[in-house]
Amino acid sequence: MKDLERQAVERVLSRLLPGEDQWPSRLHRAMRHAVLGGGKRIRPILARLAHRAAGGDPDAITEAACGLELIHTYSLVHDDLPALDDDVLRRGRPTVHVAFDEPTAILVGDALLTEGLLVLARYPDGPAWAALRAEAVGLVAEAIGSRGMVGGQMEDLEATGQVAGDGVSGDPGVRLDLIHRHKTGCLLRASIEVGALWAGLGVDQRGGFTRFGEALGLAFQVADDVLDSTATAAELGKSPGKDAKADKLTWVTLYGLDAARRKLEQLETEMIQLARDLEGPDGALAAMARKVVRRRS
Amino acid sequence: MKDLERQAVERVLSRLLPGEDQWPSRLHRAMRHAVLGGGKRIRPILARLAHRAAGGDPDAITEAACGLELIHTYSLVHDDLPALDDDVLRRGRPTVHVAFDEPTAILVGDALLTEGLLVLARYPDGPAWAALRAEAVGLVAEAIGSRGMVGGQMEDLEATGQVAGDGVSGDPGVRLDLIHRHKTGCLLRASIEVGALWAGLGVDQRGGFTRFGEALGLAFQVADDVLDSTATAAELGKSPGKDAKADKLTWVTLYGLDAARRKLEQLETEMIQLARDLEGPDGALAAMARKVVRRRS
Repeated sequence: MKDLERQAVERVLSRLLPGEDQWPSRLHRAMRHAVLGGGKRIRPILARLAHRAAGGDPDAITEAACGLELIHTYSLVHDDLPALDDDVLRRGRPTVHVAFDEPTAILVGDALLTEGLLVLARYPDGPAWAALRAEAVGLVAEAIGSRGMVGGQMEDLEATGQVAGDGVSGDPGVRLDLIHRHKTGCLLRASIEVGALWAGLGVDQRGGFTRFGEALGLAFQVADDVLDSTATAAELGKSPGKDAKADKLTWVTLYGLDAARRKLEQLETEMIQLARDLEGPDGALAAMARKVVRRRS
Repeated sequence: MKDLERQAVERVLSRLLPGEDQWPSRLHRAMRHAVLGGGKRIRPILARLAHRAAGGDPDAITEAACGLELIHTYSLVHDDLPALDDDVLRRGRPTVHVAFDEPTAILVGDALLTEGLLVLARYPDGPAWAALRAEAVGLVAEAIGSRGMVGGQMEDLEATGQVAGDGVSGDPGVRLDLIHRHKTGCLLRASIEVGALWAGLGVDQRGGFTRFGEALGLAFQVADDVLDSTATAAELGKSPGKDAKADKLTWVTLYGLDAARRKLEQLETEMIQLARDLEGPDGALAAMARKVVRRRS
């Protein structure tokens, strides 16, 4: 099932991105390098699965859902920049500033963020969807802005001492929770919520989706922390062990590997119960929850 | 008139931006530093003037129009980065990466771009505007993406040799036109078009606004080139003379100062004729055209 989901997303992503021969070709080559070099496509797939669970036809929203992947990729390209995480490997390939250069990588991130929100404003097309399109842009933009994903990245930079901290909290547990919920959690949660929104579910009707999305966001980040401390570069497609080296605040460095694994089990149970209410037993959201918790890369 | 216009925009801008005490406060302080430190507010004012010329009430669209200023400011913050133009002075104050640091400046740009499109997705509020909100996000996002503003910046970097060029054109005149039309022109044109769009004018009905916007965008850039070669830092609020030093492709370096001034006169005449058709004689758009052509900072 997952591979069919991924193929549906992959085809549309390639079609949505401007071609390499289209002006300005260097920028478009770099955008395609960033987006089309692998990736699990979890966010658009989550939107499709949530949309189906909410009673919609997932194929009607695939283009729009791909906007989420463009936005996710922008955040990776900018996080990898020398001034931020300074990462050279992503999805098993050189990062954009390595394959191209730093100015190009900054512009690639800017263009992918813009294109991602443009796709959400234009798809699903047709006048019947117009009001939902504006609402979807609002929901996603709020999740990825200064009070969401970008805010989580700011907090992370302060926590690692990369920028002068304003000292929101002396408690590292509170700080870690703030980082996790925003940096990774907000866009994952929004991906699920927007799938339900496209099926016409208002904010009062999609509480179950929101809770599932929040649990999934946290599980994703804890699993990431566990992988960073246990996996190899070949498995990850990016440089592992950076967290411990950078003295970074993670679930593993703060609570230890065993506690992180227990947290993952608890989140898995919670998500499978929520998924049952949303889509019945053994559905695709439950399978996704298991996959995220047990992923090896 | 212009000062009242500017005050209307200034009040709303300050209210739209998250407060300095709101988490993450460092990011929000830096965003406010970038946006609220002066600036002519030409883009939101143009949207208000175009909206009035198209028969609308400008006060109904001020919030939405401020989204254009947030987007413009994002482009300045990223252009000023060390990896791009490496500028230390903007609007008479230290640039964000100087007043704060480089990682913060990257995130400020990302957050302002996101917030700008969020504002366009949420305002003007009320269900009657929903379809126009989605259309406005689409129009503006297209103008500022890889085939618009960001594309112009990419072309500029290639023209100055800051990144390896793909060599779109060997003709410097063609290249300069490509840079001008996209880097500055696209967002100025979109600011005017979106003002007409909010008054319900479809793409077929707003051709006069589009042509006025294109002429204004070019005039703005030629005037900028003239100012860079003639004004002082105190007048400009940013570092002048950089273009000649960097051997940059500009109207002045390519065609000379006299030709640039003649081009400005010709654009002024064209804009005043277009403005007469749109709003009658001696209206606010004509005044804005004169101001842009004759500006001293």
